[in-house]
Amino acid sequence: MNQDTICALATANGIGAIGIIRVSGNQSFEIVNKIFEGKNLEKVDSHTVHYGFIKDEDETIDEVMISVFHAPKTFTTENSVEISFHGSPYIGKKILEALIKNGARMAKAGEFTMRAFMNGRIDLSQAESIADLIASENEASRKVALNQLKGGISNEISFLRNDLLNFTSLIELELDFAEEDVEFADRTALKSLLYKIEDKLNSLIESFQYGNAIKNGTAVAIIGKPNAGKSTLLNALLKEERAIVSNIAGTTRDTIEEILHIKGHAFRLIDTAGLRETADEIEAIGVKKAKEKVENAEILVYLIDSQSENLDEDFRLLLEIEREDLHIIVCLTKTDLDDKINSSHFLTNLIANLKNEFSLLSISAKENWNIQDLKNELSSYVEHLKSEEGNVVITNQRHYEALQKSLNSVKQVGEAVSSQITTELLAYELRNALEYLGEISGEFSNDEVLGNIFSKFCIGK
Amino acid sequence: MNQDTICALATANGIGAIGIIRVSGNQSFEIVNKIFEGKNLEKVDSHTVHYGFIKDEDETIDEVMISVFHAPKTFTTENSVEISFHGSPYIGKKILEALIKNGARMAKAGEFTMRAFMNGRIDLSQAESIADLIASENEASRKVALNQLKGGISNEISFLRNDLLNFTSLIELELDFAEEDVEFADRTALKSLLYKIEDKLNSLIESFQYGNAIKNGTAVAIIGKPNAGKSTLLNALLKEERAIVSNIAGTTRDTIEEILHIKGHAFRLIDTAGLRETADEIEAIGVKKAKEKVENAEILVYLIDSQSENLDEDFRLLLEIEREDLHIIVCLTKTDLDDKINSSHFLTNLIANLKNEFSLLSISAKENWNIQDLKNELSSYVEHLKSEEGNVVITNQRHYEALQKSLNSVKQVGEAVSSQITTELLAYELRNALEYLGEISGEFSNDEVLGNIFSKFCIGK
Repeated sequence: MNQDTICALATANGIGAIGIIRVSGNQSFEIVNKIFEGKNLEKVDSHTVHYGFIKDEDETIDEVMISVFHAPKTFTTENSVEISFHGSPYIGKKILEALIKNGARMAKAGEFTMRAFMNGRIDLSQAESIADLIASENEASRKVALNQLKGGISNEISFLRNDLLNFTSLIELELDFAEEDVEFADRTALKSLLYKIEDKLNSLIESFQYGNAIKNGTAVAIIGKPNAGKSTLLNALLKEERAIVSNIAGTTRDTIEEILHIKGHAFRLIDTAGLRETADEIEAIGVKKAKEKVENAEILVYLIDSQSENLDEDFRLLLEIEREDLHIIVCLTKTDLDDKINSSHFLTNLIANLKNEFSLLSISAKENWNIQDLKNELSSYVEHLKSEEGNVVITNQRHYEALQKSLNSVKQVGEAVSSQITTELLAYELRNALEYLGEISGEFSNDEVLGNIFSKFCIGK
Repeated sequence: MNQDTICALATANGIGAIGIIRVSGNQSFEIVNKIFEGKNLEKVDSHTVHYGFIKDEDETIDEVMISVFHAPKTFTTENSVEISFHGSPYIGKKILEALIKNGARMAKAGEFTMRAFMNGRIDLSQAESIADLIASENEASRKVALNQLKGGISNEISFLRNDLLNFTSLIELELDFAEEDVEFADRTALKSLLYKIEDKLNSLIESFQYGNAIKNGTAVAIIGKPNAGKSTLLNALLKEERAIVSNIAGTTRDTIEEILHIKGHAFRLIDTAGLRETADEIEAIGVKKAKEKVENAEILVYLIDSQSENLDEDFRLLLEIEREDLHIIVCLTKTDLDDKINSSHFLTNLIANLKNEFSLLSISAKENWNIQDLKNELSSYVEHLKSEEGNVVITNQRHYEALQKSLNSVKQVGEAVSSQITTELLAYELRNALEYLGEISGEFSNDEVLGNIFSKFCIGK
């Protein structure tokens, strides 16, 4: 276990009113004391805050507030200090230099969280959820990450894993009495446990599609002939969103241009910039371009101009780009004007032409008619991905892979139990399954895996 | 006085391990309590930190640490709370929304510091120094701001102002006894105090040139004929600097390209990007361009290629661009090669041609010869601006203007004392001078001035 004392800037880079430097390790109090003019930090109570100055030898660096946290009730479970300074990056750098000069070292990315994991305060999936929480940009991803931080996935799995561990122990006990041919582990009960585990794993694996939508947003392609009303619709969809974002000053976001949030879910409007500027898409770039856009989308919003007199081209294009796993929403646009389309005839035609199921909406982006319906339609697509039971959702690629390996391994145990395999081999298969299940919470892990996980964290976490 | 409760993000925008939201006002504890699941914050000690969850009605927003500060020993002197959350801007926004829903309001820019000033904890020049401290990007500006935060300027001035106030009271007393023609205030002592004040004001006003160099850096133009070695010199100057900056990860700066720090002072290398890419500057763009660059510079570093056989053009250019208040450093470059210039002849010529004084250095950027000398030369230029006495340096335009107005006003009092002016008019002039002197510390101020000052702060400060 690392016992040296680490330090890093914990707040975002850049100028702010306050910056925080975090220090953790056995010597935290001793090291910070050396550069602190104020109370003796080795003698103050845990969870208290103290005013003073940071000094580097004779030079005063800044006026600060210092919070002291005694092991083990800290983020890392180690003695920790947080230094709150006037938020200039330059001052932050000076304080870090002074800490390093006095025996601390710069923390590696994710090292604080890694220590919290290494010291047993949180498990690996919780550690990962901290990174997710920090990166969360919408309601759904925040919720899922917070739920995981509270132990969501690990709990679900570790109960089952514990039961499996008990069986494994019994079966290994049988090995000790191999000559007597006894059966301590009830094979029927084991089989039923295995089915239960398979079920749980399957449902967690299935939740990954929803988890992915949460984490990365759902890709939506908005396609239509020139002048079908794409720009107007995009503006109508994004306008309200922008207003919400600018509601509270000081929390600006870098890129929202093409991200639409509906009921806490993110939708990525594919290549909307291109869509917005292009004037004669189909003529100029043709079907090929539209197909490319749709290729990466999960949802297609296809706009048909209700003022259009000939829909042949639309039908042809729709037929070209539809795909079995594409969710299609057809929007009849500009319906504030008298439409020139015979609605029922149009619908019949559409059903006849399209292989996929689809939803049909009549909208007027100009008058804001049924725009909310379109949003509901988008949002319910994502809601349907949610599994019926529970809140636990897999959002992490590593967990997804570990779950799949676990599932395969559990299935193999199931086959082993059913077949006339030796107890040795059964025990071996069980150990395998336990290991895969343990990977999710980090009960089984190796340095490479850990390094990989924590290096993706930001420094200071 | 504002008594409502304000809140804002206090850390830099963007993603970090930790974000801090600051709450200040009478109702801080009550409001935060409503959204905090943990201890009752109205019952905990001042300067203590508490673990728990922020909730908005039934929904858990984040796991947080909350620091509680009881009035009056807080930054604003009001009851204050700091909420430390997982540093996602999205979570920060959610917490602010919950606070606002429960009775807090978003703080305006600088409002926390304004309250500290309004409530008498710091004076105006200290408030301004907080903004300077946060914005400090180099050693000198950090030092000056910290010194001012500790009361530097205000102390210097308020002692003198108090003495002047005593005289004013005596003179106003004379007005009450006008018919008896008494003189309570010793005019000779008053005159000598006025001289003392003038001296102090003069030296503070003079320090502004140095203060400006500290705050905005010193502009340096590096000029020379094509191939005189500008790029190589620039790289040599900036290379080391970059190494220092990248020493500590996590403290990256946005723009360092053209800023050079020497001994804690910033030098702005004018238009170095342009200089670096241009290949035939003098031929193509001519003297005009070079002159423009030098126009805004305080220092000219003129490079002469020691391999050059004809220096007429250099002399002509130097003569064209020199300016009385321009500090000139002439560098003979590429001196690792055998030089083709007759040094003493060259020097004689240079002296004969240039009206200004100048320094002459022989450098080789390639071999790193005398680069340090050039840096010393630059740095000593700034050091010379420092006034002899004391550490107090004016960096703020508003202070500079208030000091000048004070000086004029004090001079007028001096004239009034010397001339046979009525006591009424003398008292009037004295009140004027007191008001101007009081503007620096904020003893005299109006809402417009205050609004102006604090609106330049960042939100959350």
